[in-house]
Amino acid sequence: MPAPRLATALNSPTLDLERSIIDGVSVIEHWLRNEWQKHAVPFYCSVDLRNSGFKLAPVDTNLFPGGFNNLNPEFMPLCVQAMMTAVEKICAGARSVLLIPESHTRNISYLQNVATLQAIMRHAGLDIRIGTLLPHITAAAEVDLPDGGKLTLEPVQRRGNHLVVDGFDPCAVLLNNDLSKGIPGVLQDLEQIVIPPLRAGWVTRRKSQHFNAYDDVARQFALLIGIDPWLINPYFAACGKINFHEKKGEDCVASTVDEILSDIREKYAEYGVKEDPFVIVKADAGTYGMGIMTVKDGAQVRALNRKQRNKMAVVKEGLQVTEVMVQEGVYTFESIKDAVAEPVIYMIDRYVVGGFYRVHTGRGIDENLNAPGMEFVPLAFEDTCLLPDRDARPGSSANRFYAYGVIARLALLAAAQELEKSKTRTKANVA
Amino acid sequence: MPAPRLATALNSPTLDLERSIIDGVSVIEHWLRNEWQKHAVPFYCSVDLRNSGFKLAPVDTNLFPGGFNNLNPEFMPLCVQAMMTAVEKICAGARSVLLIPESHTRNISYLQNVATLQAIMRHAGLDIRIGTLLPHITAAAEVDLPDGGKLTLEPVQRRGNHLVVDGFDPCAVLLNNDLSKGIPGVLQDLEQIVIPPLRAGWVTRRKSQHFNAYDDVARQFALLIGIDPWLINPYFAACGKINFHEKKGEDCVASTVDEILSDIREKYAEYGVKEDPFVIVKADAGTYGMGIMTVKDGAQVRALNRKQRNKMAVVKEGLQVTEVMVQEGVYTFESIKDAVAEPVIYMIDRYVVGGFYRVHTGRGIDENLNAPGMEFVPLAFEDTCLLPDRDARPGSSANRFYAYGVIARLALLAAAQELEKSKTRTKANVA
Repeated sequence: MPAPRLATALNSPTLDLERSIIDGVSVIEHWLRNEWQKHAVPFYCSVDLRNSGFKLAPVDTNLFPGGFNNLNPEFMPLCVQAMMTAVEKICAGARSVLLIPESHTRNISYLQNVATLQAIMRHAGLDIRIGTLLPHITAAAEVDLPDGGKLTLEPVQRRGNHLVVDGFDPCAVLLNNDLSKGIPGVLQDLEQIVIPPLRAGWVTRRKSQHFNAYDDVARQFALLIGIDPWLINPYFAACGKINFHEKKGEDCVASTVDEILSDIREKYAEYGVKEDPFVIVKADAGTYGMGIMTVKDGAQVRALNRKQRNKMAVVKEGLQVTEVMVQEGVYTFESIKDAVAEPVIYMIDRYVVGGFYRVHTGRGIDENLNAPGMEFVPLAFEDTCLLPDRDARPGSSANRFYAYGVIARLALLAAAQELEKSKTRTKANVA
Repeated sequence: MPAPRLATALNSPTLDLERSIIDGVSVIEHWLRNEWQKHAVPFYCSVDLRNSGFKLAPVDTNLFPGGFNNLNPEFMPLCVQAMMTAVEKICAGARSVLLIPESHTRNISYLQNVATLQAIMRHAGLDIRIGTLLPHITAAAEVDLPDGGKLTLEPVQRRGNHLVVDGFDPCAVLLNNDLSKGIPGVLQDLEQIVIPPLRAGWVTRRKSQHFNAYDDVARQFALLIGIDPWLINPYFAACGKINFHEKKGEDCVASTVDEILSDIREKYAEYGVKEDPFVIVKADAGTYGMGIMTVKDGAQVRALNRKQRNKMAVVKEGLQVTEVMVQEGVYTFESIKDAVAEPVIYMIDRYVVGGFYRVHTGRGIDENLNAPGMEFVPLAFEDTCLLPDRDARPGSSANRFYAYGVIARLALLAAAQELEKSKTRTKANVA
């Protein structure tokens, strides 16, 4: 697969950005190495990026990545090698792991992700079984997968302060479930290691806290390689309690939208960008692209019709949207055969292990590609993100993918810092 | 490339061994993880293996691997990822490294290895330059490489206790030179980190000390997965001071040869192996396959002619053979199109990053394939050593390569322990 054509006339600033990153490889890797001495890296992570031609930025950082099956199978060894390191970190003694997936069993593509993750961990030498939280699964159930394989889901049981499945008392519990519905009792107060920590779930996690941390990381990084931090960092602000049904808190959202639009307009003027600024209004907690809205004017927020209000009011598994984040929209100017494409980068421990493009023909360049009903086509990166090449021509796929890997790792570093802060907060709440 | 045909009728015990390794993946990886908590892993390492169909064992462990150019370029990302970890270990702050290669500049294939190593380290974000110890290179010299690239060799200079090249004072010095000639003054008492440590060079290192350490490792590993340690461990013994020219110490060699042959005969009887036992007599210090002899009877050692004595008396760069090791010979029953093949496994940090076959048509199955004048053809592994597959048929290349990676890592672990012991010894000598 060729890297998508960068379908933009505005590509000189991006190539500048990419050039700054490629020229800075040794400075960047050195800096990252030092940062990882100071911060505990999340076990795994995926980052949605947007590349507008003049700007390259993360727009979503997922601590429970669900698309390992979309990665290029050729790079499985990279995943296995990274997993070996990740496992050492959580506990050198760990040998058996219970993986807790999401509970939407009908999403076969998601289950293929679980099977891929299981395979990676098995190759890395772990005994791994899949425990389901679904109450209607009362005995081991085998699911047929698209690739011809099978996945066995087993009902979890609580034995004292251990989460077990039949005949298997694991050292560690690995969550691939973002806890949108809250933290089930069966997962609370476990003596086993739980990764990521429960506070990484959407009950406590806030996107705005992540992007707060990213603000700092992006500022430091920009200083390091001498660029304007805005080129890698979307403006954002959080609004407090909102009730879309009852039209409460809308004023805050509308005025925030206008402020951010105005800030973007200034930057667009500075860089000679001719596009229309837009912002994304989304739930501050939650995932799966529900409750997301593209807005080009604060007035639009006040003029929502009932259908739009309903759409914004509820995200995954019925979680109510009560807090909202407004984020600068970043145009996607990457396309594959005229379909809009958005890169997603996967990391295990601090290593970039691959990525894919989320490709969608029916969407505009200013829309969220991870939206309900969206049937995106994943397109695995043909190259890794590990081989920057100073001598390659600007815009070469090796360099573009390396730049993606760098920006994704900045988001990973932000996630690490975010989790540190939430740890302190959780402790303070207990005290 | 298909994995070489295992040209042997005696393959049931090997497949048993391979099966034990594949069945033990999680036990083995868990055990290795724990061992690496206890022992500092060498920076890099290559291991020559021999697979006789009934036995799979390391016969040489190289702490200055010189064939990175022979690895499959597709697995470059695995090398880069492993290098990122290796660099973190030596010094998170390290950003600039001076690589000191061997001094035989006419071996263009070796220089291609240096360039590959440089590329791996550059991709991992290090500033790396090549310093030569050759006195006749007094200014930066560019060498054209077979792959079309170029390598710049720069004369090293000593500035106080730092080794530098023009305008470059590196954090660390990486040796890709096995110090067969001794430790040059310019490398002594450096304040910079030197990796591997100087005592890993052949002035102090002894193969017999390595295989002593390997004895322990193999015994523990065999116990772990329930096999006879002999299946992965060749018998060996060291003889003290020998002078082949003056026929001094030959009796020790001859009687050791006979003892080991007798031990092998017992094992061959136990396993129903019909082949003739043989041993390898080699220098206890040194490399490059000089001073190596295949022997099937102690009497052969006493009956050496002058030419044979001369051959044994000197190894690389004129180093005199004064100590000799006698090691059980392991038949090579792997072949590619009727040419004998010997696997070589490459590791960076504790990760197996690839391997290749040393293929030679003109050699017998009981001869050393790394011999003077030998023109071996390297054949890169098509698969990594990272994807064991419990469900694959016995003898699948994925499983065979995984088994190779495991045995190579046992040798790596032995090298780690060997270097620990020599550290203590060096300190004791100083005190």
